[in-house]
Amino acid sequence: MHFTAETSSNGVVERDFTVGEVTGVLWSPASGSDRTPLVLMGHGGGTHKKAPGMVGRAHRFVTNCGFNVASIDAPGHGGRPRTAVDEREIAELQQAMAAGEPVGPIVVRYNAHLADRAVPEWQATLDALQKLPEIGAEGPVGYFGLTMGTAIGVPLTAIEPRITAAVFGIFWHESLAETAMQITIPVEFVLQWDDEHIPRQSGLALFDAFASKEKTLHANAGRHKELPRFEADSAVRFFARHLGRAGTSPA
Amino acid sequence: MHFTAETSSNGVVERDFTVGEVTGVLWSPASGSDRTPLVLMGHGGGTHKKAPGMVGRAHRFVTNCGFNVASIDAPGHGGRPRTAVDEREIAELQQAMAAGEPVGPIVVRYNAHLADRAVPEWQATLDALQKLPEIGAEGPVGYFGLTMGTAIGVPLTAIEPRITAAVFGIFWHESLAETAMQITIPVEFVLQWDDEHIPRQSGLALFDAFASKEKTLHANAGRHKELPRFEADSAVRFFARHLGRAGTSPA
Repeated sequence: MHFTAETSSNGVVERDFTVGEVTGVLWSPASGSDRTPLVLMGHGGGTHKKAPGMVGRAHRFVTNCGFNVASIDAPGHGGRPRTAVDEREIAELQQAMAAGEPVGPIVVRYNAHLADRAVPEWQATLDALQKLPEIGAEGPVGYFGLTMGTAIGVPLTAIEPRITAAVFGIFWHESLAETAMQITIPVEFVLQWDDEHIPRQSGLALFDAFASKEKTLHANAGRHKELPRFEADSAVRFFARHLGRAGTSPA
Repeated sequence: MHFTAETSSNGVVERDFTVGEVTGVLWSPASGSDRTPLVLMGHGGGTHKKAPGMVGRAHRFVTNCGFNVASIDAPGHGGRPRTAVDEREIAELQQAMAAGEPVGPIVVRYNAHLADRAVPEWQATLDALQKLPEIGAEGPVGYFGLTMGTAIGVPLTAIEPRITAAVFGIFWHESLAETAMQITIPVEFVLQWDDEHIPRQSGLALFDAFASKEKTLHANAGRHKELPRFEADSAVRFFARHLGRAGTSPA
């Protein structure tokens, strides 16, 4: 892991890093403390590790809970090179959107492909993060990711025992339900009740698939991109409950 | 409105009252302040205005938000006299439970009957409460009620413009969906994903029926009586968002 840049604002230190070819960012409390909980954040399709919503959520997690928060660019995203598959799938997606055709089948297929590439990248990143003294190998780890962040996060969480609580949502069930059945950690799952892309029953089926004894669905009135801002605060409380605040045991 | 008893604990004043034949209780901040928001709380079937869950929630609302909180005993509940209809319906319910038969049809029918009696009682109570200087006629009013508290609260809210935000849940859609379609205020709606009494699709249909532009479903893994305690905190935040904290405008 190489740190390549560092800035600081409002009590949050932001450090860019690379792990091999993967570009990432780590947000930490400026006050500093050892072995604080870590939240991994996966971004949505077509965006990147420092999209405004990602930065806003990271600051909430650091400021309210004292967590470390890490995000990496997905393959083909955030300036990372695109493969021929990336180019072809993105072109198909743009054509479907321009023609007003359903994007679901393309997103489901392409994001499953991206997950195959991204899961080992997340695992290598987590290995590297846990070697930092401010994180360590013993602390609790959460995962937050919606849309494409769910498409990558569900298979990651299913094979990664270090992740002990997760927020997912806003995705189709077809490619993920079988994998979700292997997940037993606490899950908060959001969906948009009037999503124009994801059929309601598909989102409900994905929530239903998780084997977790503690799981909560938050379904809000509104379209695909209208997730209410108060859900960001809910995710903060979810992780505070399950990861514990910095320096305390999980409650 | 006659106050019949007063106690105080942990900064919360609890005053029993009567409005006509209706028995109620009002919880208020011991510090006292004028024209603070009011939350009406309807209790569940077979319980009463001071059931432990009611008292716990009331203290949360008063302590965290500075609200006044009022609850009244439903007809035939909490020591209020039972009619011949009450006796017959309760006997049928007990027989069905003892025989392991579905209780839904009986609860739906009996609670619709109780709502007819309870709605005017709630309106008279609200009239009386708004004459108190610490509440006043101008402040925002919320309604909280699950199970039977929803069966009574939905028709109350549909005809009562003074109620501007409501938490409902854990009830069947059959008797309430049509009325819910008249409700446009912000709603938080809870249901239990593995409810052994209420079919999942029935609960989802009731949530779907509300005409509210802002509505949120919180569905938790677990059976009918296993609502997680963190939902009580969520209701506090919902009302803090929509009613404003005491002395502040709604945010």
